[in-house]
Amino acid sequence: MRHQVCIIGGGPSGLLLSLLLRRAGIDAVVLERRSRSYVLSRIRAGVLEQGLCDILREAGVGARMDAEGFVHDGTIITAHGTTVHIDFKKLTGKSVMIYGQTEVTHDLYDALDRIDAPIFHEAEDVAIHDANGDAPYVTFTHDGKNQRIECDYIAGCDGFHGVSRRSIPDAVRREFEHVYPFGWLGILSETPPVTDELVYSGHERGFALCSMRNANLSRHYLQVPLTDQPEDWSDEAFWAELKLRLPPHLAEVLVTGPSIEKSIAPLRSFISEPMSWGRIFLAGDAAHIVPPTGAKGLNLAASDVYYLSRALISHFGGDGQPLRDYSATALARVWKASRFSWSMTRMLHEFPSEGDFLAKMQAAEVDYLAHSPAAQTALAENYVGLPY
Amino acid sequence: MRHQVCIIGGGPSGLLLSLLLRRAGIDAVVLERRSRSYVLSRIRAGVLEQGLCDILREAGVGARMDAEGFVHDGTIITAHGTTVHIDFKKLTGKSVMIYGQTEVTHDLYDALDRIDAPIFHEAEDVAIHDANGDAPYVTFTHDGKNQRIECDYIAGCDGFHGVSRRSIPDAVRREFEHVYPFGWLGILSETPPVTDELVYSGHERGFALCSMRNANLSRHYLQVPLTDQPEDWSDEAFWAELKLRLPPHLAEVLVTGPSIEKSIAPLRSFISEPMSWGRIFLAGDAAHIVPPTGAKGLNLAASDVYYLSRALISHFGGDGQPLRDYSATALARVWKASRFSWSMTRMLHEFPSEGDFLAKMQAAEVDYLAHSPAAQTALAENYVGLPY
Repeated sequence: MRHQVCIIGGGPSGLLLSLLLRRAGIDAVVLERRSRSYVLSRIRAGVLEQGLCDILREAGVGARMDAEGFVHDGTIITAHGTTVHIDFKKLTGKSVMIYGQTEVTHDLYDALDRIDAPIFHEAEDVAIHDANGDAPYVTFTHDGKNQRIECDYIAGCDGFHGVSRRSIPDAVRREFEHVYPFGWLGILSETPPVTDELVYSGHERGFALCSMRNANLSRHYLQVPLTDQPEDWSDEAFWAELKLRLPPHLAEVLVTGPSIEKSIAPLRSFISEPMSWGRIFLAGDAAHIVPPTGAKGLNLAASDVYYLSRALISHFGGDGQPLRDYSATALARVWKASRFSWSMTRMLHEFPSEGDFLAKMQAAEVDYLAHSPAAQTALAENYVGLPY
Repeated sequence: MRHQVCIIGGGPSGLLLSLLLRRAGIDAVVLERRSRSYVLSRIRAGVLEQGLCDILREAGVGARMDAEGFVHDGTIITAHGTTVHIDFKKLTGKSVMIYGQTEVTHDLYDALDRIDAPIFHEAEDVAIHDANGDAPYVTFTHDGKNQRIECDYIAGCDGFHGVSRRSIPDAVRREFEHVYPFGWLGILSETPPVTDELVYSGHERGFALCSMRNANLSRHYLQVPLTDQPEDWSDEAFWAELKLRLPPHLAEVLVTGPSIEKSIAPLRSFISEPMSWGRIFLAGDAAHIVPPTGAKGLNLAASDVYYLSRALISHFGGDGQPLRDYSATALARVWKASRFSWSMTRMLHEFPSEGDFLAKMQAAEVDYLAHSPAAQTALAENYVGLPY
């Protein structure tokens, strides 16, 4: 087989890249290790920057999002007795969209199905060959048969554990990592959100986040030690702890109910440089991981895909400069979003080993934020997404 | 002897408090452990917030500052290849004044001399008695004689090592401290400043600051390990290292010359709560220390003195509430300025034990700053001073 672009990884990044390229007449193929039903069952982020919404609309997959998603013009940050409403719309003119990543994936599949875009699910033993040469190719096993795809370019959209990043030699790559001394215990429940907007709560017992998918589906998180297991937390214990970490006026109105999913994820910052080598280009989690505070993971993957799709379209149109610049262009935004995710995490979580001084700095930061339109604007412009 | 207010410490805080109280008809006395010539020979900060300038003018000691000081409408921040000009005036409508603390002290002495305000220099063995009772008094030795001052209130302006803070029982006080793993090596030289504004330079070799006192008196600093001694650094070594830490266009025009002072100071954040107990009220370094990044030390002492003078004047005028609120009022601003000093220090210094990730976060922060008017405004409003 031969395709112009071989996309490794069929999560939202790979699917969106395929759609954007195909809409521009570029022949892209997607290889995904898992089944379609597995991909569609993954519960992930649900806060979309306006830039990502615009890309989805441009790609023709924004209709259901616009009909069913919830536009959020602000968020609530509360910590150490101070509650601040960050009014995105007033401060930046922009908003975010609450619409689950699972739904985005669903819409992308539907659009790709309509144009018969090729996707290989359950592609096993994917291997990248000659990525630094003029004739790269990808081999894999599918339905018990060995397959080989020759291509001009390879897009690595296969996440942190995928093969793409590791196909760039160690001597070329430089990795930066920061591990936080805690995780997030998350539950999904068929209960209404505690309020109309997301609530980020810093508390001496640990951070909490009240998030949502829709009017009767809530996603709540608690900062927990890395040694905790989901089974250590009964639903009752979860709700009781969440109430302790919320301001009283929110704790009082919190509606509880049985969890339909419960899991713990560690928090990590990770960036691998460069994001391209020869004819392979990385996008999303394959190149970088952010902690979930501030909801930048999917959005950062989307800006990578935006830059990469534009660069490939430009390249096949005769101008190769954007593709040569891709790594630097994408990384400039990646580093800034990583900084924001890191600083939101630092501002709102308990770091027991750093003592009382940091807790007081956090309290002072939220107090300052409450009184400074400039600081609120800085937070808001990062939250709704820095310009592409 | 009896006075209404006994001020312990004759640095700029104590002198300014004395002047403000005396101008309002309140009988204040100052006790200073050192001689007048010693106090006047101390080299300290030289960046005055507009709020402090306004207080000095209001107290009738702003004339020489306005004639000889230099108004700075901005500053330069440079790090990791990015240079940002922070335009205070445009972003906040305010400026800062370059005028040495020594000169402020000189002007305060002159004004106090003109009204024959009592100051005891070389007051030894100062001790505070019954600070929590109705009739506090202060004892000390002066000119070989034991002295006793009865008073209504005691103002502790005697710095970090003074007796005032320690007169508040340990059971009442809570201390917060953060020690940075480096110091600042500073030299004073009769050379022109490298440019019209201060230059804060983050660099992989360590932080550097180009500051100034006047057109032919410069104050430069280098981040150095705490194990270094001033005598380890020849003038030649200092200038050579400073050049390495500046952007080439500034290094090229740097004028060097012999140092006339050279010293190393450790960096520390320290805050003691509360700032009052019974009839004693702390102001300035007696209650808090900030790292010098951002030049908040003297300015924070000045806002304490502003609040305390207003509160005492109000009290003697019949309304005691501001005096009861003094600690909370002063601390709200202290914590925010401490946060700013800490965050400026974190953004621009090398922290070798924290690895590459922090260095990349710092670079991303300066890159973000360079592109965000909101982030520049947040920095500027803190630098020129948050409102009293």
